Amino acid sequence: MTTPSTPRRVEGISLDPWYNSYADRTAGLSASEVRALFAVASRPEVVSLAGGMPYVSALPQDVLNGSIERVMQEQGPVALQYGGGQGVGVLREQILDIMALEGVRGSADDVVITTGSQQALDLVTKLFVNPGDVVLAEAPSYVGALGVFRSYQAEVAHVLMDDQGIIPESLRETIANLKAAGKSIKLLYTIPNFQNPTGVTMSFARRAEVLEIARSNDILVLEDNPYGLLHFGTPAPHAMRSLDDDGVVYLGTFSKTLAPGLRVGWALAPHGIREKLILAAEAAILSPSVFNQLIISEYLNRTDWMAQIETFRETYRERKESMIAALGEYLPKLSWTDPGGGFFVWLNLPRTSIRRRCSREPSRNWSRTPRAPPSTRMDAAATTSASRSAIRSPTSSRRASAGSPPSSTASSTC
Amino acid sequence: MTTPSTPRRVEGISLDPWYNSYADRTAGLSASEVRALFAVASRPEVVSLAGGMPYVSALPQDVLNGSIERVMQEQGPVALQYGGGQGVGVLREQILDIMALEGVRGSADDVVITTGSQQALDLVTKLFVNPGDVVLAEAPSYVGALGVFRSYQAEVAHVLMDDQGIIPESLRETIANLKAAGKSIKLLYTIPNFQNPTGVTMSFARRAEVLEIARSNDILVLEDNPYGLLHFGTPAPHAMRSLDDDGVVYLGTFSKTLAPGLRVGWALAPHGIREKLILAAEAAILSPSVFNQLIISEYLNRTDWMAQIETFRETYRERKESMIAALGEYLPKLSWTDPGGGFFVWLNLPRTSIRRRCSREPSRNWSRTPRAPPSTRMDAAATTSASRSAIRSPTSSRRASAGSPPSSTASSTC
Repeated sequence: MTTPSTPRRVEGISLDPWYNSYADRTAGLSASEVRALFAVASRPEVVSLAGGMPYVSALPQDVLNGSIERVMQEQGPVALQYGGGQGVGVLREQILDIMALEGVRGSADDVVITTGSQQALDLVTKLFVNPGDVVLAEAPSYVGALGVFRSYQAEVAHVLMDDQGIIPESLRETIANLKAAGKSIKLLYTIPNFQNPTGVTMSFARRAEVLEIARSNDILVLEDNPYGLLHFGTPAPHAMRSLDDDGVVYLGTFSKTLAPGLRVGWALAPHGIREKLILAAEAAILSPSVFNQLIISEYLNRTDWMAQIETFRETYRERKESMIAALGEYLPKLSWTDPGGGFFVWLNLPRTSIRRRCSREPSRNWSRTPRAPPSTRMDAAATTSASRSAIRSPTSSRRASAGSPPSSTASSTC
Repeated sequence: MTTPSTPRRVEGISLDPWYNSYADRTAGLSASEVRALFAVASRPEVVSLAGGMPYVSALPQDVLNGSIERVMQEQGPVALQYGGGQGVGVLREQILDIMALEGVRGSADDVVITTGSQQALDLVTKLFVNPGDVVLAEAPSYVGALGVFRSYQAEVAHVLMDDQGIIPESLRETIANLKAAGKSIKLLYTIPNFQNPTGVTMSFARRAEVLEIARSNDILVLEDNPYGLLHFGTPAPHAMRSLDDDGVVYLGTFSKTLAPGLRVGWALAPHGIREKLILAAEAAILSPSVFNQLIISEYLNRTDWMAQIETFRETYRERKESMIAALGEYLPKLSWTDPGGGFFVWLNLPRTSIRRRCSREPSRNWSRTPRAPPSTRMDAAATTSASRSAIRSPTSSRRASAGSPPSSTASSTC
């Protein structure tokens, strides 16, 4: 608080008169990298490889229109009214069928529908994290999750990965060091399938081992699985939640397999946590949109939604292959991941080129691990044959950009 | 955290293994009274006077269907995609026109669209409230807001009202006492128009005086205005925000004038606060539903939405008059408020009848003021001529219920 004698308004100077009033946690809010990516990606002249936006134009709009019409016709007044904070029962049942595809069994009673799975991240963090508590996350990890953790004053400790996912020895060592320092570790946040941003998938053996380490240290696992169904031929191993009912909060979403504009995701929580999660959700938004939930429920009920997911798989697989081919052609000296599904390819960049060509170190967004090598995430899901020209070294891109759209490199992620 | 030696699972006993892991703020989460009301109100046999649910069946569904169709036809891929965290620009401009009806001028740059205005309550509280900070609120106040404040470990201090709204002397005295006790007062939360739950409207003179008290004590005013446009003939005084650009965060919503199922509300924030509000919104949900925002934008653009608001005004006025008439007929010994708009009539009950007939004291939900007289909120907006029978003393209601639906009293709010 300012003292009453402090003038709130300073003539001619644009100061925030509430500068001294903010809560301590506000210091953890920083300009959203997700916003910066979306802002650049939506500019018409930019061929973005950064966004993480699904290809919604591939959706059968007439089918979706039919679902919307039926909802309005048959359940209009229900769809337009307030609903329950936990979400619509019939959709929660349908979500069980979706999760079963990845080996997850649960009760619809333990599903909580949220405004995208981002809100589930926010609510779980709100439920568990006191200022100074530690959240473990892969190095690198999803920037939007790191932003949530910081907004509740969590300390994020990154755990090393290899091409099989989290390295158990790194996890054990990190936990031991944090405990020795007297830290309280509350959550292990992981994206085991086609990880954002690296595209890496955690092997089944690693999942079991990571769960065992978390269990023996009383650390709740927050398993974020937006991409699991979007594999390129070989299904991902069963979800971590399939191995542990009590130790995992599992997050899913319709943003990648249907449409992010509807903002419908969910959490499947251990029974004891579920009730608190609903209370937190009700405090935050009263209830998620019934209208949007019923549209999705109707879509799942009346259409061959698995066929649509197959279409997405094929589209994203082709785009990933196009990206990998372009990388081999234009950037043969670099290395990258070759994901088995999802949206992202991770590119390791030579330190010198980053220093010369980019305004800031890209890996800063995903991890605070000191001396992380320069690297960047590229959105393979956004790659089309027309956008292969976006995959060039900064030098060749500059050369190629004469007569072609400007800003067509992945520089928004630099 | 439990220590590693504590068993997480106790055989045969359904304990929450994470009981010791929750953040301190979780203690502030309590069973939602809003949920309890909605749950009862949605039972088909109940004539609820409790809910606060708008009469969405009065909406012109064909017009709304037309808006939805046009959005999907003309902007489908945009509607289904992620959007900006602040909300769609064109809708933020249209919101300026709506707020202008209550004297508010602002910039679309300072409007942040949220998942219902409930989310704006949550985000503003997250931005300003440290554990132990004080939020001032009317006695009684909206239960859903009190739940948010508690979820961030705020202390809520209630300020007395009369039929002109907040009593300035009570406000000054409360602030002085809190300051003397070393408390940090961050927010004054008020619903100046047709208040929830009392139906009282703050006079213009009081608005100015309350603002001056807040200003001189560096307390940010959180003006919640869901009902302002739903007056019964005489418009409410201009919004508090019309008198103070820097000292008020103004909240509006489409939940009462259009449809809560779309979950679209907004905050108009002082410029310095606006940016932090967007960051908090992005951390919480990335972006509000573009689909729902565009439907509302299209509805506002293509229809005579003011005529629809006129229809709602007339409907709610008739229902309020029906409720007041029924109260006079069936409960002549009691007293109640006669609101000039909105949804709620506040009924003062004799202490003895409450003790005999209700399971818990109703005013507990709205205020922690000691020795508040027994009272209850009744949702006039839900009253139809067919439901006048719901307004009876518990005794007469029991008598009347032979052959009629059970549970037809207002007991859900008891």
